[in-house]
Amino acid sequence: MSTSSSTDPAAHPRTFASDNYSGAHPEVLAAVAEANVGHAPAYGEDPWTAQLQELIRDLFAPDAVACPVFNGTGANVVGLQAALPRWGAVICAASAHINSDEGGAPEKTAGLKLLPVEAPEGKLTPELVDKHAWGWGDPHRAQPLAVSISQSTEFGTCYTPGEVRALADHAHESGMILHMDGSRLGNAAAHLGTGLAAITSDAGVDMLSLGGTKNGLLGAEAVVVLSPESAPGLEYLRKSTMQLGSKMRFVSAQLTALYGGDLWQRSAGQANAMAARLRAGLEQAPGVGLPVPTQSNVVFATLPAEAKARARQAFHFYDWPGDPALVRLMCSFDTTAEDVDALLAAITGQP
Amino acid sequence: MSTSSSTDPAAHPRTFASDNYSGAHPEVLAAVAEANVGHAPAYGEDPWTAQLQELIRDLFAPDAVACPVFNGTGANVVGLQAALPRWGAVICAASAHINSDEGGAPEKTAGLKLLPVEAPEGKLTPELVDKHAWGWGDPHRAQPLAVSISQSTEFGTCYTPGEVRALADHAHESGMILHMDGSRLGNAAAHLGTGLAAITSDAGVDMLSLGGTKNGLLGAEAVVVLSPESAPGLEYLRKSTMQLGSKMRFVSAQLTALYGGDLWQRSAGQANAMAARLRAGLEQAPGVGLPVPTQSNVVFATLPAEAKARARQAFHFYDWPGDPALVRLMCSFDTTAEDVDALLAAITGQP
Amino acid sequence: MSTSSSTDPAAHPRTFASDNYSGAHPEVLAAVAEANVGHAPAYGEDPWTAQLQELIRDLFAPDAVACPVFNGTGANVVGLQAALPRWGAVICAASAHINSDEGGAPEKTAGLKLLPVEAPEGKLTPELVDKHAWGWGDPHRAQPLAVSISQSTEFGTCYTPGEVRALADHAHESGMILHMDGSRLGNAAAHLGTGLAAITSDAGVDMLSLGGTKNGLLGAEAVVVLSPESAPGLEYLRKSTMQLGSKMRFVSAQLTALYGGDLWQRSAGQANAMAARLRAGLEQAPGVGLPVPTQSNVVFATLPAEAKARARQAFHFYDWPGDPALVRLMCSFDTTAEDVDALLAAITGQP
Amino acid sequence: MSTSSSTDPAAHPRTFASDNYSGAHPEVLAAVAEANVGHAPAYGEDPWTAQLQELIRDLFAPDAVACPVFNGTGANVVGLQAALPRWGAVICAASAHINSDEGGAPEKTAGLKLLPVEAPEGKLTPELVDKHAWGWGDPHRAQPLAVSISQSTEFGTCYTPGEVRALADHAHESGMILHMDGSRLGNAAAHLGTGLAAITSDAGVDMLSLGGTKNGLLGAEAVVVLSPESAPGLEYLRKSTMQLGSKMRFVSAQLTALYGGDLWQRSAGQANAMAARLRAGLEQAPGVGLPVPTQSNVVFATLPAEAKARARQAFHFYDWPGDPALVRLMCSFDTTAEDVDALLAAITGQP
Repeated sequence: MSTSSSTDPAAHPRTFASDNYSGAHPEVLAAVAEANVGHAPAYGEDPWTAQLQELIRDLFAPDAVACPVFNGTGANVVGLQAALPRWGAVICAASAHINSDEGGAPEKTAGLKLLPVEAPEGKLTPELVDKHAWGWGDPHRAQPLAVSISQSTEFGTCYTPGEVRALADHAHESGMILHMDGSRLGNAAAHLGTGLAAITSDAGVDMLSLGGTKNGLLGAEAVVVLSPESAPGLEYLRKSTMQLGSKMRFVSAQLTALYGGDLWQRSAGQANAMAARLRAGLEQAPGVGLPVPTQSNVVFATLPAEAKARARQAFHFYDWPGDPALVRLMCSFDTTAEDVDALLAAITGQP
Repeated sequence: MSTSSSTDPAAHPRTFASDNYSGAHPEVLAAVAEANVGHAPAYGEDPWTAQLQELIRDLFAPDAVACPVFNGTGANVVGLQAALPRWGAVICAASAHINSDEGGAPEKTAGLKLLPVEAPEGKLTPELVDKHAWGWGDPHRAQPLAVSISQSTEFGTCYTPGEVRALADHAHESGMILHMDGSRLGNAAAHLGTGLAAITSDAGVDMLSLGGTKNGLLGAEAVVVLSPESAPGLEYLRKSTMQLGSKMRFVSAQLTALYGGDLWQRSAGQANAMAARLRAGLEQAPGVGLPVPTQSNVVFATLPAEAKARARQAFHFYDWPGDPALVRLMCSFDTTAEDVDALLAAITGQP
Repeated sequence: MSTSSSTDPAAHPRTFASDNYSGAHPEVLAAVAEANVGHAPAYGEDPWTAQLQELIRDLFAPDAVACPVFNGTGANVVGLQAALPRWGAVICAASAHINSDEGGAPEKTAGLKLLPVEAPEGKLTPELVDKHAWGWGDPHRAQPLAVSISQSTEFGTCYTPGEVRALADHAHESGMILHMDGSRLGNAAAHLGTGLAAITSDAGVDMLSLGGTKNGLLGAEAVVVLSPESAPGLEYLRKSTMQLGSKMRFVSAQLTALYGGDLWQRSAGQANAMAARLRAGLEQAPGVGLPVPTQSNVVFATLPAEAKARARQAFHFYDWPGDPALVRLMCSFDTTAEDVDALLAAITGQP
Repeated sequence: MSTSSSTDPAAHPRTFASDNYSGAHPEVLAAVAEANVGHAPAYGEDPWTAQLQELIRDLFAPDAVACPVFNGTGANVVGLQAALPRWGAVICAASAHINSDEGGAPEKTAGLKLLPVEAPEGKLTPELVDKHAWGWGDPHRAQPLAVSISQSTEFGTCYTPGEVRALADHAHESGMILHMDGSRLGNAAAHLGTGLAAITSDAGVDMLSLGGTKNGLLGAEAVVVLSPESAPGLEYLRKSTMQLGSKMRFVSAQLTALYGGDLWQRSAGQANAMAARLRAGLEQAPGVGLPVPTQSNVVFATLPAEAKARARQAFHFYDWPGDPALVRLMCSFDTTAEDVDALLAAITGQP
């Protein structure tokens, strides 16, 4: 991986590598600075966290509970661990972050067995869930007690409210909960033109990892419990899973800055718009393939070798496993039209 | 716990509850803002983290490795897990944070058995270590492979360089490593008048949890590996232990702000000086007991019931388990002489 | 450890090393042979296991549930894991088998934190329990949700029915369960002159590890759930904890052979009687100390160096950590008066 | 599941449900009885276990190490846990026992991530392994460090020595070990007409779960370490994984009875021959499908509904998930030609 060798601002152009290559939105930094006043009780007993709790109840459901944590893997592992007994297993897409990008944390830290299923464009369906949804009562089988979906998915696709509801109903019929990895929830909502509740609490999601870092925070996520009875021991598990921040006000203040107004929409909307602009440009580019619909802030494309080499000279982005021509081009809240056009120019060789 | 009910600055007076009730030092916030420029590789491949690595090598040892994490429990669990095989056990004081205040995280997340020993004033000695340092080769016994000490301890006492060295030598003779929970390492060094290396790398410590949050950071700690051969798999374990931050530059920048100059000394020195001032005042106060030496930023005192009640009306602080009259009075980097004098006035009832 | 070098019967004299140095009682072997008929459903769906379930209900309580497992560590870990949530901790004597002799299995496999307390002669009291019985609701503290006692203890002492009841009531008042490691339950009941229920179900025990191996089985123990509501998921946990035997009939048949009639009493009574005979002899022996009451099948004694050397030439037994003169002399179901007298002669040097 | 309701021998006809529905071979019971002499050191320090160690070295390799355990899940989990660091992952067939039938024990108890791949007839190939064999050095990915195969597979198919060697070479080239779940190793060797070493140590297998229970033992398996350097801490892990038997002589004696002479061949050969006889008969039966080759002691068949109903009246056997007509018909060491012919008659309706 090529790394910038300097902490000098000029050395840090925007890239298409990942939305976590971006920094923090200025409004977020301002909120952190505003919370930096005097002393406040630690570990979540502070007013900024109380304010976040109120916000979460307003946004999602009257009995929703927010549990701020440090990162997305932490949110997923704390939430699933709280919702499932020791004998539980989680049905997910093979491409899900919990299965493919968390270093085995769900298994290693929470003792959860994952039941992955190959899912086209990263999306589960009730039919795909059924591949693993059986065997309850059989002690030889880790018990399928949760379905986990990513919104938006790791391929940038989105579940409609109806698709979420169908999965929730299907899961609930078998006594399973529906978990949502919403590390890019804002991008999905912005794409679908819905609020956050429409694709979560209102659609039957029981447990949510509410993202933030990828949408312009310094580093903050939250477990949001939408069916509180399904998460006994959440407070204890956050601590023993090492996700309990002492100066939690600075975590909570970030989340409130993002979700307390329209910042999440502005930022996600910008990232999505830039991905759409990029896709539109690529559709015109010779030799470029676009194997996945663009429904949020990422474009998957197959590039001719020369085009890829030219683009890489100018921008950081990732090759995708499985096809040497396939690349992932991710837009962030701070990606500009100029960035996109420069990338397109590099790809097409036509400035 | 009484919590402030407002995010209004005026509502947040300084307390003596904990050094994590304080906020962040302005220089730290400034460093975070300075790092908020453009895009940077995620997960530690950024130049701020590279800069921190260089700093750690300068401060501790040429082959020291820094592994920034989110919080102190995370640092302890990642470090000990990296240093010990699955069959390892850790000898520690019963009062150690890893034993008493981490919700069982070392056992539950890392599968480590703790071997706690009652230690006066929170300090281990080779003799106390020997209570558990036996049984190697016996599969019925979780193998004692690490000694863990806190510097400063949970009672605010400090190990001299010689005391650390004696414990390191004793541990090494039996094939154990010496781990140090340095969540308040700066306070210890400021008290002892040494540099950081004198009580860690130079004294035989193999694995260090380098604190930051309690000395004025927003939230940042680091596992510092002083005997790199003793931590295979550190990178994998940080991830699966959910302590790998994506926008790591903001974690690293905080640590560099603290340890790159003299901020750690100024802040710890101020906290220690305020504890000394508080102790001096309490020594004159009628009916007050001071059962523990004051060697860093905390004073343990037994207060007459009326004095305690008066003090609590004005300030937040914690009762200590085991003696209803015993309280812990913790000073922070931002504690002022006026704060201390006001607390003393409340305790003595003499304004 | 000196090992016999031959599988020739003559090479295997009886020892005083441990009750698991003994073999199996002939009636147990016969019961296994009787169960070796044709095919039977695996994993506990067989009639021998059904018969054991009925026996357990008769012996303990109408809703008691037996869960046969392979060994005592397995029984303890499965039982405690089933009874406690992921955030639970277990108060026990420092000398308890779960703390001292299970290689850290409760922590490493079940993620349970142990809260050990120094207990004279291995026995907990409500007062000793209270050393750790606090902090409920505090996420920084692994939650004390079980008290575990050994009956008989690792020092051979026994809890009277009243002592068990006092501990059960004390535990229940705080919402904790009472777990009993009954690997030598028969020896305790034989000493106390009670039935098995009197010191378990009738005295408030919620979860029992019912021993067998140490009282003449080939290898069989059982988790016995006395408060069935306290063990959700037992079946799943036995499997994932690797204690589910396929040909379970052979495990169940052993337990029924032991507890279905008076074999447990005959065998435990013989072992206890031999320990009493040994103690009586040692009380007359010059220079021998007897620091612990003899209440079951073991005698702890301090021996003069010469006496110890003479005894060791003839018999295998264990030195005990902490005092170089202290030895543990354990009697088994097959220990004879001649064995005891020969040991006494070796110790005293007077044939 | 229909269970026999009696412990009366006549009530226990042979079935085709599983080879663990069968009992123990008389020679095995005799060996246990022969080992039941006097006292012997516990936990494997006995001469029967020493004898087993010698046998294992003779059978497999001069530096092979046997580690007797209680059951197959225990053998798999202890062996894989000993061979892999905490960050390891295991590539296996989706149908592998470790993935499908162990209640999630590898994940829950050992913290291992499984990387399952759909494998026709249960057999991995280097190409199938490569689906997951990538990403070394990336902390976001649980590190693939072992390939695990079952011999014979859960579908009764066998790997030839050449196929095992190809997988071993392929694994070793990437720094992975080859693990073999040999719960039915004898059936594979009997089918292939090889010795045990030819398909294990001689073919590059590093870690073996050596079966016994399914081939006529009461209950005994062994972890056999063929590359001893690959299993540090095996002794400690067996204990903390609750697989260390105290009266180990009775476990070791069973294994020696099976593998010390030709009992394993006689028993596996009989089971295989009965499966071949059954297959031959089914090939003549109208409407019966045989979708999987018969290479050991099991026949998978699709049966017409009426045939299945008739067969089930007479014999216990299992439906197989995924196809309502598919059944598994398993033969045991004690299955007779009369049993097979009676099943065939029931299926065909022609006595």
